[in-house]
Amino acid sequence: MSEVISMVHGSGGSATGELIDKVFAAEFSNDILDAMEDAAIVSAKGSIAVTTDSFVVTPVTFRGGDIGRLSVCGTVNDMLMRGATPSYMTCGFILEEGTDIELLKKCVHSMAETAKEAGTRIIAGDTKVVEGHGGFYINTTGVGIVPDGVDISASNAKEGDVIIVSGTMGDHHAAILAERMSIETDIASDNAPLVEMVTKLRSLKVHTLRDITRGGLGTVLKELAETSGKNFTIEGTKVPVSAKVSDFCGLLGLDPLYMGNEGKLVAIVAKEDADKALKAIRSSKYGENAAIIGEVSGKEPGRLFLKTELGGIRELDVLQGEGLPRIC
Amino acid sequence: MSEVISMVHGSGGSATGELIDKVFAAEFSNDILDAMEDAAIVSAKGSIAVTTDSFVVTPVTFRGGDIGRLSVCGTVNDMLMRGATPSYMTCGFILEEGTDIELLKKCVHSMAETAKEAGTRIIAGDTKVVEGHGGFYINTTGVGIVPDGVDISASNAKEGDVIIVSGTMGDHHAAILAERMSIETDIASDNAPLVEMVTKLRSLKVHTLRDITRGGLGTVLKELAETSGKNFTIEGTKVPVSAKVSDFCGLLGLDPLYMGNEGKLVAIVAKEDADKALKAIRSSKYGENAAIIGEVSGKEPGRLFLKTELGGIRELDVLQGEGLPRIC
Repeated sequence: MSEVISMVHGSGGSATGELIDKVFAAEFSNDILDAMEDAAIVSAKGSIAVTTDSFVVTPVTFRGGDIGRLSVCGTVNDMLMRGATPSYMTCGFILEEGTDIELLKKCVHSMAETAKEAGTRIIAGDTKVVEGHGGFYINTTGVGIVPDGVDISASNAKEGDVIIVSGTMGDHHAAILAERMSIETDIASDNAPLVEMVTKLRSLKVHTLRDITRGGLGTVLKELAETSGKNFTIEGTKVPVSAKVSDFCGLLGLDPLYMGNEGKLVAIVAKEDADKALKAIRSSKYGENAAIIGEVSGKEPGRLFLKTELGGIRELDVLQGEGLPRIC
Repeated sequence: MSEVISMVHGSGGSATGELIDKVFAAEFSNDILDAMEDAAIVSAKGSIAVTTDSFVVTPVTFRGGDIGRLSVCGTVNDMLMRGATPSYMTCGFILEEGTDIELLKKCVHSMAETAKEAGTRIIAGDTKVVEGHGGFYINTTGVGIVPDGVDISASNAKEGDVIIVSGTMGDHHAAILAERMSIETDIASDNAPLVEMVTKLRSLKVHTLRDITRGGLGTVLKELAETSGKNFTIEGTKVPVSAKVSDFCGLLGLDPLYMGNEGKLVAIVAKEDADKALKAIRSSKYGENAAIIGEVSGKEPGRLFLKTELGGIRELDVLQGEGLPRIC
């Protein structure tokens, strides 16, 4: 096989077959995928959670992860946010001509490893080739199984609920930006599958879960306030930010409230279970820095407020303007 | 809203929200999608069929269809080929900067119309923006419900079975090529969802269904011969090709056996049901030119033979080399 992707790899003929065999099938092998049918058939009794996401992050590798790990974490976490077990995943690759096949293999291996960590099976895939300069995109779609009785939804937040975040804000955003600006730092992306954390939370009175990705905590909370028709108030000093990211933000004039993460969630939990939920998150992999940051009230539907360090109150909106392009 | 896509539309903030509202949500609106959750939840009792496909066709509009219609047909047909009802679909858009929003809307409308025709609901979506020159890609992933007792699979072909194709070969390929070469012709793409056809076939002894896309009939049959471990023989004179496509191929030195379609299937059917299956296909939308083209034997496992017009026998392989890039 040539060492970079060329248009012939997209033909659907023998070169495509060779690419699939050598790069994808070996890493993702399982009895369902290996059947190479038009559609994979799996059993699903009850409710299923379905989510899709495309990954266009640049650069494709970065401190703490790569596009492969990211593409699994993003979709696995979206299934988890509905309380589902992230059982199955599909992947679609759009490869530009000139893609380095060794780099591709590295990212595919990383996908396979992360899928294993998350307990997810990749059951269908597709590969296309386009002109370009050696970049590539990955779409992942998840099909999760929702356990009986689980009802976690953006609209379920209730007056009196407590708002918990599972860790420090802005790590993924800062790591990508540092790579792109060639800033020397040891800030690493937080890209991680939150399976253990959500599994532990399922037995508690958790009303809403949302992973804090593109747009950051501010955007996510404003959207949840609107969806649930509740009023959210958070305290700025309680939002966890690592010292490194805090310094990085100070230097560049960035606001961690609007910076994307890829392994953090916000949980909205009934007050009586808040301490248990915090403990459950802190005792889970990737949750050691969790904190209670605010509460839900019924006063001003759809609005999000921040109590500042100096005791002031500032209303927050979703992210305006560009943020950081191609962060995920 | 600006009239072309810019990087700000990929921020995850207010501009992304506006894009989703104005371009996608209005067209795809249904109660599941409108909830705008991290994952859509639907009920699925029994077995589900899952398939994924990315669409990178260029140009994005062509005689007889566009990338929107194509992206629904491709995934709907893949679900149907396992006998599943194509109930649900997700879509992921990767938009290049400079994408004309009117053109995007046209293709999105076409997706919505085709989904309606196929009885499919779009239940989850994602939008990313990348640098570029105004092109765009669509990933669609299908989740279909497999009716009890249905078992249609590439490995099910049996000795004595009859091979049927549902219509003329090469139309989509020829239509795309004509667009790209600015050849004046009225050959139109055959992109179509084969729901009615497959629904009618389900009650018959249909062992295998496969849609004839990238790589063409030759590639598909060779792959099926290998998967089932059977020997397939087809007669060249029986393979339907329209006069227009036949002339087009003659002019350009193309072989319709290796040209992609987007609304045709091959059915491998027990001999006693072959006539009924042919009738069912011919009486379905998009099936009027169906024909019996060959048969399955156990003689030479994994091999595909073509009886030529002059009475000779030629062995066929999967497509070698490029075919036509970015046909779907």
